[in-house]
Amino acid sequence: MVENKRGLLLVISGPSGVGKGTVCNALLENSDDTVVSVSATTRKPREGEIHGENYYFYTEEKFKEMIAQDELMEWACFCGNYYGTPRTPVLEALKQGKNVILEIEVQGALKVKSKYPEGVFIFVLPPSLEELRNRLEGRGTESKEVVEERLQTAIKEIQQSIKYNYFVVNDTVEQATSDIKTIINAEKARVERCNFKDEF
Amino acid sequence: MVENKRGLLLVISGPSGVGKGTVCNALLENSDDTVVSVSATTRKPREGEIHGENYYFYTEEKFKEMIAQDELMEWACFCGNYYGTPRTPVLEALKQGKNVILEIEVQGALKVKSKYPEGVFIFVLPPSLEELRNRLEGRGTESKEVVEERLQTAIKEIQQSIKYNYFVVNDTVEQATSDIKTIINAEKARVERCNFKDEF
Repeated sequence: MVENKRGLLLVISGPSGVGKGTVCNALLENSDDTVVSVSATTRKPREGEIHGENYYFYTEEKFKEMIAQDELMEWACFCGNYYGTPRTPVLEALKQGKNVILEIEVQGALKVKSKYPEGVFIFVLPPSLEELRNRLEGRGTESKEVVEERLQTAIKEIQQSIKYNYFVVNDTVEQATSDIKTIINAEKARVERCNFKDEF
Repeated sequence: MVENKRGLLLVISGPSGVGKGTVCNALLENSDDTVVSVSATTRKPREGEIHGENYYFYTEEKFKEMIAQDELMEWACFCGNYYGTPRTPVLEALKQGKNVILEIEVQGALKVKSKYPEGVFIFVLPPSLEELRNRLEGRGTESKEVVEERLQTAIKEIQQSIKYNYFVVNDTVEQATSDIKTIINAEKARVERCNFKDEF
């Protein structure tokens, strides 16, 4: 009686260390109808990184041309390198009925939201700030100062998270993944995303 | 990190014969945190019906007093009898964290929506109009004319259903019940329903 052939634009953010990458990878496993958006960047590829798979690697000239042509859904400059989300592959995949994950930071997510309010904006939270600190320290790669700095950034991001649609607490990856799948299934049933197959 | 202690107001409608009563009963089974709202009515109790369980049975005088005192979330008059949803028990249950099901018709649901837009408005659809006709005929209690009349009413209600939040197709009771549980779980995770436990 009703159908919904269009994929969902899933924008997933969360503080550094919360484990959103792991959750996104778990979402993609055994899922035919969900894909992840590949970002564009001007930074040099690291060993083993493949163009079109890990990133689209572009020159700064090409990247700026894409900005000028409005070919990026959002973009930012970190540490002298540009990063952005190419628009065409995302829109194409949505049209084909695929859900597309954008794993991006808060500023980019809010830019996307202003243009695509029909997207599903999910913020991944740690069970507590204490646990986030543990996870950041557990990496063993960052100094105490860097961990503190990341925690302060996390607090600022969490304050912004009220502009998202859903909270998902990443206590275990299994639970967080299952929660996101629940959100996807519910969003697919939203009236404004469905069309009647019958004539009335 | 976040909590959501308040129950959801679940407004469930659908055309006659779609099986929404069966779906609502299935939702209540094995569920500690979901209750159904008991309607008030001025019609006489049928044998075995219990006040406060099947309905609150009131005199017309008392019912009109409740209307005057704004104690009903919605009300209507069918075949000379008044029916309505008492407000206080619903708000009390929500405060206690229970999800409250209002199984009401479209006009009442839209009245509730105008006052409680934070409710979750679910419209139960048949797999097809043909299948709805089969279900209405399958009851074997209605004449051909009555079945046709109900189908025409169904079409009008389905046209109104775009004002709801979610469609649930009742193909099997199990699937429809599971779909509503999915919607409940997703809605519980909505940012605007959650509060931070931590201070930021």
